[in-house]
Amino acid sequence: MTMQPWQEQLQAWLTIYQSYTAKGHVATYIPALAHANPQALGISLYLPDHRLIEAGDTTTLFTMQSVSKVVNFMAACETRGLAKVLENVDVEPTGDSFDSMIRLEIHKPGKPFNPMINAGAITVAALLPGDHEQQKIDHFLTMMERCIGRKPRINPEVYASEMKTAHRNRAIAHYLKGSGYLDAEVEDALNVYVKECAVEVTTRDLAKIGLILAHDGCHPITGERIVTKKTAQVTNSLMLTCGMYNASGKTAAFIGIPAKSGVSGGILASVGRRSPHTSNPFPDGCGIGVYGPAIDEYGNSVAGIALLQQLSEAWDMSIFSS
Amino acid sequence: MTMQPWQEQLQAWLTIYQSYTAKGHVATYIPALAHANPQALGISLYLPDHRLIEAGDTTTLFTMQSVSKVVNFMAACETRGLAKVLENVDVEPTGDSFDSMIRLEIHKPGKPFNPMINAGAITVAALLPGDHEQQKIDHFLTMMERCIGRKPRINPEVYASEMKTAHRNRAIAHYLKGSGYLDAEVEDALNVYVKECAVEVTTRDLAKIGLILAHDGCHPITGERIVTKKTAQVTNSLMLTCGMYNASGKTAAFIGIPAKSGVSGGILASVGRRSPHTSNPFPDGCGIGVYGPAIDEYGNSVAGIALLQQLSEAWDMSIFSS
Amino acid sequence: MTMQPWQEQLQAWLTIYQSYTAKGHVATYIPALAHANPQALGISLYLPDHRLIEAGDTTTLFTMQSVSKVVNFMAACETRGLAKVLENVDVEPTGDSFDSMIRLEIHKPGKPFNPMINAGAITVAALLPGDHEQQKIDHFLTMMERCIGRKPRINPEVYASEMKTAHRNRAIAHYLKGSGYLDAEVEDALNVYVKECAVEVTTRDLAKIGLILAHDGCHPITGERIVTKKTAQVTNSLMLTCGMYNASGKTAAFIGIPAKSGVSGGILASVGRRSPHTSNPFPDGCGIGVYGPAIDEYGNSVAGIALLQQLSEAWDMSIFSS
Amino acid sequence: MTMQPWQEQLQAWLTIYQSYTAKGHVATYIPALAHANPQALGISLYLPDHRLIEAGDTTTLFTMQSVSKVVNFMAACETRGLAKVLENVDVEPTGDSFDSMIRLEIHKPGKPFNPMINAGAITVAALLPGDHEQQKIDHFLTMMERCIGRKPRINPEVYASEMKTAHRNRAIAHYLKGSGYLDAEVEDALNVYVKECAVEVTTRDLAKIGLILAHDGCHPITGERIVTKKTAQVTNSLMLTCGMYNASGKTAAFIGIPAKSGVSGGILASVGRRSPHTSNPFPDGCGIGVYGPAIDEYGNSVAGIALLQQLSEAWDMSIFSS
Repeated sequence: MTMQPWQEQLQAWLTIYQSYTAKGHVATYIPALAHANPQALGISLYLPDHRLIEAGDTTTLFTMQSVSKVVNFMAACETRGLAKVLENVDVEPTGDSFDSMIRLEIHKPGKPFNPMINAGAITVAALLPGDHEQQKIDHFLTMMERCIGRKPRINPEVYASEMKTAHRNRAIAHYLKGSGYLDAEVEDALNVYVKECAVEVTTRDLAKIGLILAHDGCHPITGERIVTKKTAQVTNSLMLTCGMYNASGKTAAFIGIPAKSGVSGGILASVGRRSPHTSNPFPDGCGIGVYGPAIDEYGNSVAGIALLQQLSEAWDMSIFSS
Repeated sequence: MTMQPWQEQLQAWLTIYQSYTAKGHVATYIPALAHANPQALGISLYLPDHRLIEAGDTTTLFTMQSVSKVVNFMAACETRGLAKVLENVDVEPTGDSFDSMIRLEIHKPGKPFNPMINAGAITVAALLPGDHEQQKIDHFLTMMERCIGRKPRINPEVYASEMKTAHRNRAIAHYLKGSGYLDAEVEDALNVYVKECAVEVTTRDLAKIGLILAHDGCHPITGERIVTKKTAQVTNSLMLTCGMYNASGKTAAFIGIPAKSGVSGGILASVGRRSPHTSNPFPDGCGIGVYGPAIDEYGNSVAGIALLQQLSEAWDMSIFSS
Repeated sequence: MTMQPWQEQLQAWLTIYQSYTAKGHVATYIPALAHANPQALGISLYLPDHRLIEAGDTTTLFTMQSVSKVVNFMAACETRGLAKVLENVDVEPTGDSFDSMIRLEIHKPGKPFNPMINAGAITVAALLPGDHEQQKIDHFLTMMERCIGRKPRINPEVYASEMKTAHRNRAIAHYLKGSGYLDAEVEDALNVYVKECAVEVTTRDLAKIGLILAHDGCHPITGERIVTKKTAQVTNSLMLTCGMYNASGKTAAFIGIPAKSGVSGGILASVGRRSPHTSNPFPDGCGIGVYGPAIDEYGNSVAGIALLQQLSEAWDMSIFSS
Repeated sequence: MTMQPWQEQLQAWLTIYQSYTAKGHVATYIPALAHANPQALGISLYLPDHRLIEAGDTTTLFTMQSVSKVVNFMAACETRGLAKVLENVDVEPTGDSFDSMIRLEIHKPGKPFNPMINAGAITVAALLPGDHEQQKIDHFLTMMERCIGRKPRINPEVYASEMKTAHRNRAIAHYLKGSGYLDAEVEDALNVYVKECAVEVTTRDLAKIGLILAHDGCHPITGERIVTKKTAQVTNSLMLTCGMYNASGKTAAFIGIPAKSGVSGGILASVGRRSPHTSNPFPDGCGIGVYGPAIDEYGNSVAGIALLQQLSEAWDMSIFSS
């Protein structure tokens, strides 16, 4: 069957929602992010039969930022086991900001609440096998390669520039070390975490990862199992309950697609197979990658969110649709 | 097709997990709850073709307690409109306890975070139409009747006894009034909320409500639309992200079924239609009602949770299974 | 010795600092307060030999508001004993706002932190002897009469109007009731507290109370003991550490006089006997009453604070001056 | 006049309160502190005429720990000016623990609340002049030398051992850096702070510092001005309102002497000149140093506090006594 009608539909929506980019602002806390084109917008849908439905900026490379937390968690579960990882990080959503430390202090003993906030992600990065930073980051890159088919590049400027201003994340890492939730040297864990954030991808790459998560952790093209079914389910659950910063609840309620965003404007989303009763035109599921660097007050791509909501409603993609 | 094999399977699991009741304790803050039989355990699955699969205590009446928050939200959305309700309450999960007030004070202007915690539920109860308590509670009871086919009874002892010790909830209601998030007299809103908590149901009743939510808000037997599809999706999303107290994230990750629990030991769960790729034996969805008054540290039925996890794993019922 | 030079000096300062009233705003949350003259400013110093040094609006009646917390505490200690009172309220300063509830929830079991914030004052008001509101408030009024020589009036409009909007204080009272720190019916305790806030005084009255606290609890004219020396010391300590809302630390550091303010613009201050090494012209101490209804962001009289700082510096009145 | 009666009285009290050491525990988070003799107890009173009244362990060297925060603040004010210091740190008490970070996050922009908690002390240490750690710590040691007449030693084991476990303080320092309240490199500021904590003193040394603060910042023997009168008053005020951890309010109320404690069991206290009306036998003031390494739940020397309260009551030393 031809992709064309959907492709055209997607293109039409993209044209509409591109105007939404004006409502947001490009993240400016590091120069590399500030140079992004605020009007950029792109989306890729990757189907299990290898077909792509795309519109807009789908070949622009951008850094993963918080989207990397998903792959960080997958890599740690795959190498250390889900049970070991969950001894060190909980899976509960919070209403706090992504870089909050309050809950670590109030809720003793200070186990980070979930792997989608900075504290949890740093704890998880520390769990990656290896005594040093290099070995740990290699495990992340290997997981990336297995998902997207190539070893991605770590953007050296973004990495260097984030390390220089990583005061809050350093504070978090030292705090975790002090309370026994950092199974690595602070600088090693921090370097791994910041390098992961600086990994470059396109919307197509994110769509590929999303498709694997949509298929219970199996690569739909090669059939290879990337993570266990249980890990895939936990990852999807974490994206749905905690993936979109403090708009996670709203995204779950009004879009209903497990998704993880980053301040660079990327969104990775996973649409599993749905009941044939829904009007979803892709009953075998799909992965979605979005790029729109103008972000809203929560840190999510303004136009990206609008586009996802349009897709979810028009194509009946919510996990809660039955 | 005969229900018998599933019935027998369910009975076998119930026998196993009944021993888990010893790990929990019956809620004691009001005498009526303290008199519950701690070993009680029952479960009902209600299928869209009207068939029931059941085991254990499925005819015991117990008070809804926090499970009523689901119907409270449905009734308010149906009568006032989803948009109006969401002006007064957010849909974001928190990691705080169900009766917490901290977030109201820290996050100005103090809009309650979601309708599944006490603050949000009291705000929602106040929105039910009518100038007085009686009219408001009638809207709740009408919604109940439309879902379960009979007008349920409000347990007068439980109601009276909860009103007497409702200090914290009164504090919350007055706080909400002070910050502009209580669209009723404090005593009216509180009475409605506490009466809702005291409504008596069986597991079968909860399963019926669950099935409606599993079917996008339509009554699968009568075909009647009970709430809009959008309201049903938001309700399911709220149950998944905030329905099981501070174990909501864990329930989403390891069970993956939208569910709402109460301290009386009830759980209402909604399993939507799933993709035929899953091994779920009920591809057309089902509603589930559980009763097990021995609760854990979070406030959830210990054996009930174990039973639900068994079902979800054995029958591939997770919303994240694809 | 003649008062004239000090009187003239005081008048000169008052003229200077009256312009500071423009930096503040009159409290508006109840109409009665909003009608105050924002430019009003008055100060009374009461010496142990009965002499008064005054300038400005010293005969205007205004409601005590939070200044009443001082007399509330004195009355409870005198009638129930200091030890009994301190079983129910701590004496620790907090950095939270006067009507905060956060600390009650975070620090179990929820004993209010000190009698100078609303939660603590409501707990203390509940401890006043008597089964009903009337008996309790009578104990407060009796303590007032012993201090100022007349039974003051409760402003009925202010009382009625504060009761109508006392949502937050009602929330606090119900919370305290729920955690076992309210030894009275909620409405009784609240009525007593709000009536105390509505008691009318002049700067002269406040100066008289201040002088008693400056003299270890004895009335310097009559020689009558009003409260024990220990109670007087604890009261002065509470004023110094917690009496000026979230500017208490700054007031202690830069003024160094135990003082309690209210949103009506009143300040009660107590200057004890000082070492003859200081240049304080009133080595036998004095009581100070201030009225300046234009308040700053903390809730303290803008011009009143400036005037007190001027006095403290010029007349070497800080308790930390040696 | 002979010291003997007081000396004997002090010795008698020391004998009584030494049994209180059994109620506390020696701090164990670093080995050097854990080796302290839990029964040790000593006290020195230093009078302006150079006389000493002493009892118990007054020549044992112990590390200053948090007591150093007082001299840290004095040194920074003397070298950078009080105004500059107060741009970077507030003077408000909090009810939070000494190593809390919650308030930095909740109260934007994150200015530390006072110089007596870790966050504030690290900010103040960073303000000491010099580009590197060595220059900064030299300013602290110079201030110490001016107060106690000798250059004290930094205990190298305690310093090294605290640096190794300084995770929480590192977290605080990085947090401050990120929010603009650390005017130095993180490691420099941290090293200065930890070295200050490791400075060795005796009770006699602390009494000398206390006497300077009791005399408005002048050395009573040499007549030399050590800090400005304003700085001395602010320091005394900070000790009274925030010097004894979360028992600061209780210490102010029931002892009424500006004091700063450390987890090594030291207490520095300052008793200014008092009115001749009091029965204080030392009307010209005194400095007090206490050492009793068995500490209570707040971190204060159990027997030291009891001894101070005895002195304050028997010798009428409270700043609130008049």
